[in-house]
Amino acid sequence: MESTHRGKQSILFAAPPSVLAYASVAGKKESQGPLRETFDLTSEDTTFGEKSWEKAETRMQKTALELALQKAGLQEKDLDAAFLGDLLNQCIGSSFTMRNSGVPTFGLYGACSTMAESLLLASMSVSGGYCRNALALTSSHFASSERQYRFPLGYGGQRTPTAQWTVTGAGAVILSNAPGDIHITKATIGSIVDAGIKDANNMGAAMAPAAFETLRAHFDDFSLAPTDYDLIVTGDLGLLGSQILRGLFSQVGVELGTRYNDCGILIFDAQSQDVHCGGSGCGCSASVLCGALLGRMRRGELKRLLFCGTGALLSPLSTQQGESIPAVCHAVTLERS
Amino acid sequence: MESTHRGKQSILFAAPPSVLAYASVAGKKESQGPLRETFDLTSEDTTFGEKSWEKAETRMQKTALELALQKAGLQEKDLDAAFLGDLLNQCIGSSFTMRNSGVPTFGLYGACSTMAESLLLASMSVSGGYCRNALALTSSHFASSERQYRFPLGYGGQRTPTAQWTVTGAGAVILSNAPGDIHITKATIGSIVDAGIKDANNMGAAMAPAAFETLRAHFDDFSLAPTDYDLIVTGDLGLLGSQILRGLFSQVGVELGTRYNDCGILIFDAQSQDVHCGGSGCGCSASVLCGALLGRMRRGELKRLLFCGTGALLSPLSTQQGESIPAVCHAVTLERS
Repeated sequence: MESTHRGKQSILFAAPPSVLAYASVAGKKESQGPLRETFDLTSEDTTFGEKSWEKAETRMQKTALELALQKAGLQEKDLDAAFLGDLLNQCIGSSFTMRNSGVPTFGLYGACSTMAESLLLASMSVSGGYCRNALALTSSHFASSERQYRFPLGYGGQRTPTAQWTVTGAGAVILSNAPGDIHITKATIGSIVDAGIKDANNMGAAMAPAAFETLRAHFDDFSLAPTDYDLIVTGDLGLLGSQILRGLFSQVGVELGTRYNDCGILIFDAQSQDVHCGGSGCGCSASVLCGALLGRMRRGELKRLLFCGTGALLSPLSTQQGESIPAVCHAVTLERS
Repeated sequence: MESTHRGKQSILFAAPPSVLAYASVAGKKESQGPLRETFDLTSEDTTFGEKSWEKAETRMQKTALELALQKAGLQEKDLDAAFLGDLLNQCIGSSFTMRNSGVPTFGLYGACSTMAESLLLASMSVSGGYCRNALALTSSHFASSERQYRFPLGYGGQRTPTAQWTVTGAGAVILSNAPGDIHITKATIGSIVDAGIKDANNMGAAMAPAAFETLRAHFDDFSLAPTDYDLIVTGDLGLLGSQILRGLFSQVGVELGTRYNDCGILIFDAQSQDVHCGGSGCGCSASVLCGALLGRMRRGELKRLLFCGTGALLSPLSTQQGESIPAVCHAVTLERS
């Protein structure tokens, strides 16, 4: 029974891995938003007790991992592989999380698409018989992102109307070849799409074309329509990017309708929380998936979820050098039996 | 016929992917070293005709990819997946290489271990039936690395005795489920090891313990000894790191002997080229593998090669925050039939 390569860029898992456990951690602002009840742990202290925001990010990842392991009744030594990454330069949030853990570890860089990329690769590794239990993990932190990508917080820079707010959060999923109630059944690997957008404060617009290409390939490769899913979520297109994605689909005669939403819209109340176009960051889709969404699946409220991580693959330097913004979107199908 | 999880962290590929084609590109200094004849293309111009060193890195990657595709008689549309990364913040070298190519792409961050990490994941994807042809690609550039990790070149900073010289180079391998003469038969996934070294100018010492752990696991998991290989190479431990690795093995009664070498030692003449402890960077192991080593395998001079990518997972910021240096080493076995 071999997994099948489907169509242009998709995979049908012959032996779908199960979601053994998941956990989410989030920050103060996230704990004041509409999803406040869905995180496993939130902290009023944005440093999570650490001396720097970067170390705080590692602390969040470690906490999400520990909580997921506890729920699974596993220890680190039971993980055959970890797939993880984050937004920090050289992905230090992730490397410091896994150091001296003894867990075979693959470092990823997919910007804010990392939760979907890690789930996709972990699914391949479990379904292919390479691993029994595999970890998918990622995080982002508002304060570490702001100072790396934009301005020092103390500078008090103004945010443009299309700006998004990097989520302080982490999410961990443990996939397994053991039986379970939720499985990853399909996936579509994204290609890198650059539509020529150069405004680093408008990442929703930069990422929407990549999301469109991946979703369209997914529907084509499996002969599916949006109505085949209970919910389709993108990671962090935000208010504007989501609107653009809806528009791109309308142009080809497909209405995403009420079945479509975006983690960056779900996690904050954009108006009252002053986050402009919504949430963003690896931790946005990760903490929403590993909190609200998988919770709804476990309770049977959602049966079929298409989870689409979206990432803007720019750097401050590429922007300074006048480059436009390449983007990627990876999609995985989660099904509740 | 399913691939087997072996021992602690290893994989035996039931359907070993073949090396369909490979190509290497290198810079001026590399073209003056002992491996000058083995690269497919070298350039006297460190900008490779581009306006910045970062864009030069993308140009090198694109060239290596084009050359490998030409040799394979393939086009980009024939690649079912690409696994790639580099040392630049947010891995922009790689993202810009693949943008608008239409190739399903996984971004990786494994620091200088990326060539082995990408080969390992590409092997899993081909052997698992997820892909027919998969690309493994990486690069580094002396000038883009120096200004990102250390000092602006114009500053003329002094180099410490244990420093290494980041190789300007790129390497591409296309793996396939088609028949071939060289196959990836085994792999060992590295875990992240931090031995407490804090000197960012002594990465050989920081990485040697990770290489030791992965190599030891490889030998244990497959009941192999160094003498089972014609050549064992690490990516960029350099003169000091290699010596430490030999010492660590001696302590457990294993002599690596003359079958062991390091790409960072092979690529430069350390004395006459003034590179202190040798070469380093993703492009070091990539250009040596995709030039000298695979060339020797194709000619039948090497039958069994253990290729071990080594990466130091630090960032300038983690060093400033007083952290020690986590490191990783991934290993793949290449066999000539």
